[in-house]
Amino acid sequence: MIAFGVPNGQALEKKSDYIRLIKEFGAKPITDELLKRFKHVHPLLILRHFYAHRDLDVYLDYHDEGLEVSIVSGRGPSNYMHIGHLMLFRFVKWLQDELNSYVYIPLSNDEKYVFGKTRDLDEAYKYAIDNALDIIALGFSEKRTRIFISTRISEIYELSVRISRYLTYNTVRATFGLNDSTNVGVVFYAAVQAAHILLPTIKEGQPVLVPIAIDQDPYMRLTRDVAERLELMKPAAIYSKYVRGLTGEPMSASKPETSIFTVDGPEDIKRKIWNALTGGQPTVREQRKLGGEPEKCVVYEWLRIFVYKDVKDARRHYDACRSGELICGQCKRMLAEKLIQFLEEHRRRKREAIKKLDRYFIHEVRIPDELHIT
Amino acid sequence: MIAFGVPNGQALEKKSDYIRLIKEFGAKPITDELLKRFKHVHPLLILRHFYAHRDLDVYLDYHDEGLEVSIVSGRGPSNYMHIGHLMLFRFVKWLQDELNSYVYIPLSNDEKYVFGKTRDLDEAYKYAIDNALDIIALGFSEKRTRIFISTRISEIYELSVRISRYLTYNTVRATFGLNDSTNVGVVFYAAVQAAHILLPTIKEGQPVLVPIAIDQDPYMRLTRDVAERLELMKPAAIYSKYVRGLTGEPMSASKPETSIFTVDGPEDIKRKIWNALTGGQPTVREQRKLGGEPEKCVVYEWLRIFVYKDVKDARRHYDACRSGELICGQCKRMLAEKLIQFLEEHRRRKREAIKKLDRYFIHEVRIPDELHIT
Repeated sequence: MIAFGVPNGQALEKKSDYIRLIKEFGAKPITDELLKRFKHVHPLLILRHFYAHRDLDVYLDYHDEGLEVSIVSGRGPSNYMHIGHLMLFRFVKWLQDELNSYVYIPLSNDEKYVFGKTRDLDEAYKYAIDNALDIIALGFSEKRTRIFISTRISEIYELSVRISRYLTYNTVRATFGLNDSTNVGVVFYAAVQAAHILLPTIKEGQPVLVPIAIDQDPYMRLTRDVAERLELMKPAAIYSKYVRGLTGEPMSASKPETSIFTVDGPEDIKRKIWNALTGGQPTVREQRKLGGEPEKCVVYEWLRIFVYKDVKDARRHYDACRSGELICGQCKRMLAEKLIQFLEEHRRRKREAIKKLDRYFIHEVRIPDELHIT
Repeated sequence: MIAFGVPNGQALEKKSDYIRLIKEFGAKPITDELLKRFKHVHPLLILRHFYAHRDLDVYLDYHDEGLEVSIVSGRGPSNYMHIGHLMLFRFVKWLQDELNSYVYIPLSNDEKYVFGKTRDLDEAYKYAIDNALDIIALGFSEKRTRIFISTRISEIYELSVRISRYLTYNTVRATFGLNDSTNVGVVFYAAVQAAHILLPTIKEGQPVLVPIAIDQDPYMRLTRDVAERLELMKPAAIYSKYVRGLTGEPMSASKPETSIFTVDGPEDIKRKIWNALTGGQPTVREQRKLGGEPEKCVVYEWLRIFVYKDVKDARRHYDACRSGELICGQCKRMLAEKLIQFLEEHRRRKREAIKKLDRYFIHEVRIPDELHIT
């Protein structure tokens, strides 16, 4: 996801925040009506994990009129990806299949470096390649996917310069909450992010859709304003809620226990899930008698978002927990097994992706020496 | 010249300003001792048109030890070049011959666009190619000269990003006198300019010398600070005074009468010089009797800087003016003739330069349709 300098997964915890976006800032809820426009609806849409949008209807109109469309879904390469990232890109892959769209994936090594999330640009480069392999492993179309490292194509800088004249320091400071001792790379990155999003429109005349976490709407609004001033189609957005990390905190690479990373082995996965926050009772006896509270349970949340392909399965699980039929150990084992299995298969595909890496990149790439693929 | 957003030729008019740089900011005067280190000394050095430096001695040490050295001399392509620009590049060409050095010439289309000096990047591109032809026409070495348009090689952006983490908004605002409604392109350009200067050192390990107008020393200091933090050799600088425009004001493309441009025809040249500010007496009779004041005269200043190759010729001219032997019409005719002749020959070479343009550029170039070469 286009992740602009926000601490990883700084969630809008309260329901009211999710609603506020719609009420105050004019995003629109995803309605059943809108979902009818897809041939096969993705579970994350049915579940309203993706729950709001800007101009998704307009974007679908363009698509229905036969225009080629693009999706822009970036990644800030400061670490190995975790299960939350994989699920987002799996959703993007579904969108690609559904709309036969192009997918642009900017890997923003510049962002992670200027925000001090990587030691240097080389480190960000290493993660960029690793992350790209994870993304390719999800099955994106070779022909219709364009991956690039932000500093490696001159078009991005040129377009950022073009955009920068329309962004004052004041606006950027307000939008991103900067202070004056911020480095100038951070300041300029506002223009670079807009360039990532607007590239397919400027280069190919294609409407753009950005799947993005909801707290990033301010950057989306800023980019849409810029598009208007450049007399371009405004990019559409589809907004997701946050998924909590295993400990109940936001998922973050700096707190490994909060999530499952693509490099985690079976024992890591079992341990992390075993220690996860649940909504269970203190004892099995009480659980059987009183039932659990799936609303509080991260294990249930993860099963619902990451594992169940059908909303009905999630509903059945919910009821079984509530009734005391399920106990926490069962749910944890189920989640651990599914993720171990998924990641084993994923890593197999990731190893295969090495061979076709250069078919996805729009500039030359080299595999760094210390790439970590287990 | 690396010209950072300063109104064209915003001269330090007073002698005291020239001295202040040396006293307050620690630049050093160019001494006779230092000039002895060149095989053939350029008149602009003897005249102390280039009058101060930072680490030129250290740079010459590197050269004498057999290290390959570079000169970085940029150009902001917002208009056709004028005679002042040509003379600066002619000096750079002399330095190239003298030191057998590489010359890097960044054409900062980004700078001119973000500072609002060109309508769009395409306009800056057009001037960049025109200016490059003027520069090539001066006879730079094909093998040892690297011209590039700032937004057209990804290395410049990548290096700017690397530098940007060491430059806070506060520092840049103070150095360049920005206010908070400045666009973010201007803010970031501080890092881009440093990238232009440091590229040969980072890419090739070569010491760099920058010939630059004296009022740009603050940017030079900033770049030298950045070099220190990146543990690189600090770039050396050699500082010139300003040459006044024909009207006595600074030369500027927005005031065509202040200078002679490469596109000016003989009639333009004669007219502009005929109207130039001189130090002459109101009548020929008074001139013969009292003599002129060459210190005030722009025509004399131009002859001295642009025409005379020998300091002794300039001195003879000075005396002849003082004594009343010369009258203004003679000097104006002489200057006009020399410049008409020089520019005619220059334009011939410029037309020839079209054929070898791509041998100087380090990226692909195309000749724009509306290139203006007379």
